[in-house]
Amino acid sequence: MALTVSKTPTGSEYKVKDISQAVFGRLEIELAEVEMPGLMSCRSEFGPSQPFQGARITGSLHMTVQTAVLIETLTALGAQVRWCSCNIFSTQDHAAAAIARDSAAIFAWKGESLEEYWWCTEKALDWGPGVKAEEEYEKSGKLPDVNGCENGEYRIVLRIIKDGLLMDPTRYRRIKERLVGVSEETTTGVKRLYQMQANGSLLFPAINVNDSVTKKKFDNLYGCRHSLPDGLKRATDVIIAGKIAVVCGYGDVGKGCAAALKRAGARVIVTEIDPICALQALMDGNPVLTLENVVSEADIFLTTTGNKNIIMVHHMKQMKNNAIVCNIGHFDNEIDMHGLQTYPGVKRITVKPQTDRWVFPETNNGIIVLAEGRLINLGCATGHPSFVMSFSFTNQVIAQLELWKERGTGKYEKKVYVLSKHLDEKVAALHLGKLGAKLTKLTPAQAAYISVPVEGPYKPPQYRY
Amino acid sequence: MALTVSKTPTGSEYKVKDISQAVFGRLEIELAEVEMPGLMSCRSEFGPSQPFQGARITGSLHMTVQTAVLIETLTALGAQVRWCSCNIFSTQDHAAAAIARDSAAIFAWKGESLEEYWWCTEKALDWGPGVKAEEEYEKSGKLPDVNGCENGEYRIVLRIIKDGLLMDPTRYRRIKERLVGVSEETTTGVKRLYQMQANGSLLFPAINVNDSVTKKKFDNLYGCRHSLPDGLKRATDVIIAGKIAVVCGYGDVGKGCAAALKRAGARVIVTEIDPICALQALMDGNPVLTLENVVSEADIFLTTTGNKNIIMVHHMKQMKNNAIVCNIGHFDNEIDMHGLQTYPGVKRITVKPQTDRWVFPETNNGIIVLAEGRLINLGCATGHPSFVMSFSFTNQVIAQLELWKERGTGKYEKKVYVLSKHLDEKVAALHLGKLGAKLTKLTPAQAAYISVPVEGPYKPPQYRY
Amino acid sequence: MALTVSKTPTGSEYKVKDISQAVFGRLEIELAEVEMPGLMSCRSEFGPSQPFQGARITGSLHMTVQTAVLIETLTALGAQVRWCSCNIFSTQDHAAAAIARDSAAIFAWKGESLEEYWWCTEKALDWGPGVKAEEEYEKSGKLPDVNGCENGEYRIVLRIIKDGLLMDPTRYRRIKERLVGVSEETTTGVKRLYQMQANGSLLFPAINVNDSVTKKKFDNLYGCRHSLPDGLKRATDVIIAGKIAVVCGYGDVGKGCAAALKRAGARVIVTEIDPICALQALMDGNPVLTLENVVSEADIFLTTTGNKNIIMVHHMKQMKNNAIVCNIGHFDNEIDMHGLQTYPGVKRITVKPQTDRWVFPETNNGIIVLAEGRLINLGCATGHPSFVMSFSFTNQVIAQLELWKERGTGKYEKKVYVLSKHLDEKVAALHLGKLGAKLTKLTPAQAAYISVPVEGPYKPPQYRY
Amino acid sequence: MALTVSKTPTGSEYKVKDISQAVFGRLEIELAEVEMPGLMSCRSEFGPSQPFQGARITGSLHMTVQTAVLIETLTALGAQVRWCSCNIFSTQDHAAAAIARDSAAIFAWKGESLEEYWWCTEKALDWGPGVKAEEEYEKSGKLPDVNGCENGEYRIVLRIIKDGLLMDPTRYRRIKERLVGVSEETTTGVKRLYQMQANGSLLFPAINVNDSVTKKKFDNLYGCRHSLPDGLKRATDVIIAGKIAVVCGYGDVGKGCAAALKRAGARVIVTEIDPICALQALMDGNPVLTLENVVSEADIFLTTTGNKNIIMVHHMKQMKNNAIVCNIGHFDNEIDMHGLQTYPGVKRITVKPQTDRWVFPETNNGIIVLAEGRLINLGCATGHPSFVMSFSFTNQVIAQLELWKERGTGKYEKKVYVLSKHLDEKVAALHLGKLGAKLTKLTPAQAAYISVPVEGPYKPPQYRY
Repeated sequence: MALTVSKTPTGSEYKVKDISQAVFGRLEIELAEVEMPGLMSCRSEFGPSQPFQGARITGSLHMTVQTAVLIETLTALGAQVRWCSCNIFSTQDHAAAAIARDSAAIFAWKGESLEEYWWCTEKALDWGPGVKAEEEYEKSGKLPDVNGCENGEYRIVLRIIKDGLLMDPTRYRRIKERLVGVSEETTTGVKRLYQMQANGSLLFPAINVNDSVTKKKFDNLYGCRHSLPDGLKRATDVIIAGKIAVVCGYGDVGKGCAAALKRAGARVIVTEIDPICALQALMDGNPVLTLENVVSEADIFLTTTGNKNIIMVHHMKQMKNNAIVCNIGHFDNEIDMHGLQTYPGVKRITVKPQTDRWVFPETNNGIIVLAEGRLINLGCATGHPSFVMSFSFTNQVIAQLELWKERGTGKYEKKVYVLSKHLDEKVAALHLGKLGAKLTKLTPAQAAYISVPVEGPYKPPQYRY
Repeated sequence: MALTVSKTPTGSEYKVKDISQAVFGRLEIELAEVEMPGLMSCRSEFGPSQPFQGARITGSLHMTVQTAVLIETLTALGAQVRWCSCNIFSTQDHAAAAIARDSAAIFAWKGESLEEYWWCTEKALDWGPGVKAEEEYEKSGKLPDVNGCENGEYRIVLRIIKDGLLMDPTRYRRIKERLVGVSEETTTGVKRLYQMQANGSLLFPAINVNDSVTKKKFDNLYGCRHSLPDGLKRATDVIIAGKIAVVCGYGDVGKGCAAALKRAGARVIVTEIDPICALQALMDGNPVLTLENVVSEADIFLTTTGNKNIIMVHHMKQMKNNAIVCNIGHFDNEIDMHGLQTYPGVKRITVKPQTDRWVFPETNNGIIVLAEGRLINLGCATGHPSFVMSFSFTNQVIAQLELWKERGTGKYEKKVYVLSKHLDEKVAALHLGKLGAKLTKLTPAQAAYISVPVEGPYKPPQYRY
Repeated sequence: MALTVSKTPTGSEYKVKDISQAVFGRLEIELAEVEMPGLMSCRSEFGPSQPFQGARITGSLHMTVQTAVLIETLTALGAQVRWCSCNIFSTQDHAAAAIARDSAAIFAWKGESLEEYWWCTEKALDWGPGVKAEEEYEKSGKLPDVNGCENGEYRIVLRIIKDGLLMDPTRYRRIKERLVGVSEETTTGVKRLYQMQANGSLLFPAINVNDSVTKKKFDNLYGCRHSLPDGLKRATDVIIAGKIAVVCGYGDVGKGCAAALKRAGARVIVTEIDPICALQALMDGNPVLTLENVVSEADIFLTTTGNKNIIMVHHMKQMKNNAIVCNIGHFDNEIDMHGLQTYPGVKRITVKPQTDRWVFPETNNGIIVLAEGRLINLGCATGHPSFVMSFSFTNQVIAQLELWKERGTGKYEKKVYVLSKHLDEKVAALHLGKLGAKLTKLTPAQAAYISVPVEGPYKPPQYRY
Repeated sequence: MALTVSKTPTGSEYKVKDISQAVFGRLEIELAEVEMPGLMSCRSEFGPSQPFQGARITGSLHMTVQTAVLIETLTALGAQVRWCSCNIFSTQDHAAAAIARDSAAIFAWKGESLEEYWWCTEKALDWGPGVKAEEEYEKSGKLPDVNGCENGEYRIVLRIIKDGLLMDPTRYRRIKERLVGVSEETTTGVKRLYQMQANGSLLFPAINVNDSVTKKKFDNLYGCRHSLPDGLKRATDVIIAGKIAVVCGYGDVGKGCAAALKRAGARVIVTEIDPICALQALMDGNPVLTLENVVSEADIFLTTTGNKNIIMVHHMKQMKNNAIVCNIGHFDNEIDMHGLQTYPGVKRITVKPQTDRWVFPETNNGIIVLAEGRLINLGCATGHPSFVMSFSFTNQVIAQLELWKERGTGKYEKKVYVLSKHLDEKVAALHLGKLGAKLTKLTPAQAAYISVPVEGPYKPPQYRY
């Protein structure tokens, strides 16, 4: 795919798979709006005052139908938006087309190469490493050492930075000056932000949306409970009932996935490093064992850890013929894709996009790897459903509003923040009506008895839900 | 699509969407074989003796990947096979292509018109009404009164018969003479066979495969438990958790669907006419109400009844905006599609194939109808998974073997039969190894104590499982 | 306990633990009446016409609160009733006291010895073997050979018959002449009746209530799902979550128990002889293994088979310390109690009645045997709850009404019958209102379409629910 | 019951129901030890060094079999212990007897009056209000105004303090001086401690054991999931399947109870004040409504709130006949017992201890109130099972060890503390082996990648599990 930017009649930039899919995308966006009451309510509450007037927002997030509703909520509140996906397989091309045609600059398609991915990111998003590179270049004239870098993907990043440096050596620093803040909604992303805060490399205030209860305990749990079996079924059509499924990790994502698999009739085995999560798995009826204990018996293997090197090629070799291997955790390094790809004599048979059978020469047994080790629910299905994403994205909108409103006030330092419990409860409240729920109201006497305001927040910060 | 028959290099007839998809189809067929131990074991047990030598088998059954494994089991046992689908949306085109290229005459594609459907059927299958028409024609010279028939679909059938009559006025009777028997696996089809037996119009022996325990209590229950949510998710991407779902009918299919919806987090409401099934629904935790009680509150409506006129257009008018309406029972007449299509001022917006939003003029509310009221799991997903279909199809193979072996022996009259419990237990036994199961063996003393043979069958005929 | 019969002021005979518990018994009977709409509706429908006028009904059935409501339904319809329990541990003494005081002759208490049990039975019930013994005695003067019999329990039966013979050598034959019929509700009892029918020893018509759908698919399944965990918790207070439970047998009882254990958080392993039931267990998410495979790992062992010699003492020796062993199937011979009791050096520690720890000398490990191997739900808890028993007992009342009404008409021969589907559906219908259910009515067109009467019955005989 | 203290042969004080039940109590304590690996492991790890040498520990906690294992763990570590129950119905008399005979001073029996309860507490525990009363008495000579207090229960407390004051006017202050700290494990108790900390009335360091993950997310959730249905079944024998159950509150306790009821086949309706918990209930498949919406339809009502005045007498009047009303939250004021007791013309029928039917005069309908509105699982059953209590109590032992070890070091101020995550993880780890679990070990590279030590703790403080 030639990497050239197109423009709409109104001058908005984009690069998508097929702009003509905008019609289909619009239809699905309209369906999703009905399922996303939190975002729609942000539009009606904040839209009239245009709080994002003047704000330029760049997003790097799976370019799905739900994300389209988020983007159009941001634009409805006055923002200018540029967008790319954060995963090479997660874009829904019709959603991207509709956004490109109607609402924002967008650079995303399903099945990007890594090179294309970072090109899109560069088009949409200006990222941190550039500042350091520019400073080094100004000081010493040294360009990033692209070839000295072992990690193939990072080499691509460096080359793009290097190319940019030669064209405009102060660009990132100008961007940095203008940067008001960032909101981040993944466990993995937030962990990186806290690391940057700890080592002083955080260049801007950041709001950790992931740790809003209405994000982490809903998106991660209920979202995956929905979208994991969706991905498995679309990719393989294999029955889950009766199968043995190994879930590596029993955090919120693992809990949601294990529940989905068990309810579908699988026998679930959990691997864990954390004794507390392990005990939860046990009390939920799942044995806790090591991967080594079960590698040759199980039918489905799933990583949910946020860590690397969980399922190695030496594990894969021992699996049953047509065992399914997939990841719903963070990056594709949860599965040893490199080890698999470079295994001597291994044969890859692509059944369909994102469904590959890898055959080992010794046994002639194959394993079925989904989404090339990347997120199965986004690579093989359409990600979380709208209603759950409405929780997460309403948190995003509120976080962005807060960052923009408080720019220049000094309220937020170069640290990582979470949203207040009151806002968290508000996000939840915006979604109750859609499901016909009616809340009970505390009487003043009851509120006093448990020492909370009648209107909330109702729980202490350490409350775990 | 022009209705012309193609031929393979070896002269086998076919009409499919795209013969080049045979490569992809073959890959998925190979995956399915690993999941269908019953069929594969028929191949190894019976293949060497070629019991179907000389047999011509015509099938009318959803032309999926799993059906492909069935067809190739029949051909592996020596049969010549011709096939069409029994549903205009249920064909998987790549599976059809692989069969066309490699194994059998096939006439099926996803999205046939009714005209095309009956053309395909005529190509593959010779059906009963023709005999009566021929006899009438011979006696009185009268051709079928195509235009005097109100039912649009039946008009098409009559026209095709009429056209055939003029070309070859004894064809169906010649077919009838040669017909050895039929095996049928759907509740609806079996009901028709019993009606024909009762009124004396059954022209051949029939084996009711549907009432094999390993079919009805597995395919209907566990199959739908898998494939209903699959269809819902692929068609709508809507979250099921938190939603109110109405399941019309609590037979095996309804039980499987209700379980799937509930486990996905929906609140399930059941409608039933049968007090026993209603009581089962209640004990399983589902309220039993009438459609009228809940029509304006629910989010998802599903028919599973095998009856007609379950959800009428006057119900649909009262539903919430974007309520989902679908059918996994028998024909599309479970939902009043005719009433919907002819409702004054109604607007149909096709979001994508098999997903239509119908907007009522009075309220501007839309409902989302899946698969045009036909089977959602086959129209919007890929039907039941291989492992479950292996149960059903192993019953089919055994039934066909029995009919063919006993042709001319008089063992089977023009009646409807079920397979013996011993064969039913055998079908189950063939599938245990794949799931690592180990059966316990009765001691002779134990067998005597409960008055069964050590090797089974283990249950009396009235046993309900 | 001295075996003497007491009389109430009105002359009704009884032997119960403590007649003063009648007050408490009456309170619980009144609570149960609210939960047993089927029986109460029999009282209001049939009570006015007193259909049991002149009928003498003898019952041998767990003497619980629910049975009390059954007995008082029979008396409300005009019958005279005598009763004993069919299990030495299953009587609820307060219920027995209330019946003794108010309604019927009763001979039952919790914790009968086998001697006492058969004395009670003799007092309440006249049983078959007597006829044969009388005939033999008349012919040859031979009395039953009590000591020549190996089975300890049967020796007791023979002795009681022998004693009776000497007192009144034609008693059983006089009873037999008067006997109108029998209704039986257990799987095990029904199996015996069919054996008697097969070998010609059935002396009277029998109605198999067990195979009413509203009995077998409800009492066995939903009743056990409720009462198994109840018994386990009352007897041991042990958490079920996280434990490994082995369920021997996956019939209706096993299905209910496995579901209860799994929902409580146990990992359930099933043992089966029948491949179909085994496949059901697998599709429900349970591994199927042999007892040998898992005997040293599991925490809870449960027999549900209706067969003998399921868990032998050599299994028990291999179990973990404090493994729980119990039976909810038929007799205590599902567990090798004899082998355990006679194991050299074994030590029995009674923790509380019906909870014994048996310690093996080799390992000093103990296992915990509940209810001495008899039915755990009746021995350690109070059996099935009222609502479920109302289904079973309404079948009993209807069966008894039928037998009594048709006495002398020749409608019923000396065979085993099941109730008609119409009556089965009626039993279900009587219980819907209590749970707020509303049935849908078929239109005549719909009824015709599926070939059933508008008012039912709705299913063919082979339907499995 | 005369309030006199008995002494064992060794001089240990006690007042229990029946000291002869010590034999039975000891048997059940020995069974429980096998289920409480955390406590047993404290004995083996810390016993040899006798860390509690010199410590006097007073406990006020449900005097169950599990608590007996806790007490004997404390004494095994060198402590002297005095104990009372914290609930008038929760004592298991045989456990109390065994402790009295063998291990500690104890004052507790099932069914204490409030007067007796506070007498027991005074015997075992020295509580806070005394200090204020003594200071006031010393300053002004004023005794507590017993009759001026409206709350009946608090009047009893004041009278006991007053009586004590006259005997020994400096007793509480001497106790206070010696008091090293307190550990508290209930949500309600912890809330009071934080209130005392906030208003400066906390007289000692306190460790909040409730907010250990291994307490709150296990005891509250999994414990109630086990013990709620246990209490319901023992008290009423009523089937749960098919019933409508209202759960007031969806915190950890409510979540556990709702899961238990739903799995037993009930339809669960949740009431909530907190929108986040409400949204969780919805996503778990439960409608969220107000009590008013459902009061006349539901069959079972349960409070889990930790708040007061949840179910008022005006609600109870509207309920169906024999609706069940019970509480598993905190005090009996969740249910308006006072309103019920004083309702004009209401009639109380005690079916059995802790099961009362209250009949309203207007309708003659009764409701069934369990445990007089106090904790159903402790009043009507035996509380949480041993394994779950082992988590909670291991936290207690560790907290007490910490307080005692650090007495006088100034590490703990007069504040409320939680245990470190490392100790929390240790508690979990101690319980894995019993369930056969095997943890996975992080490699150093993996630990670095997610920035945690190889040996844990593995999660940030805000992690919610």
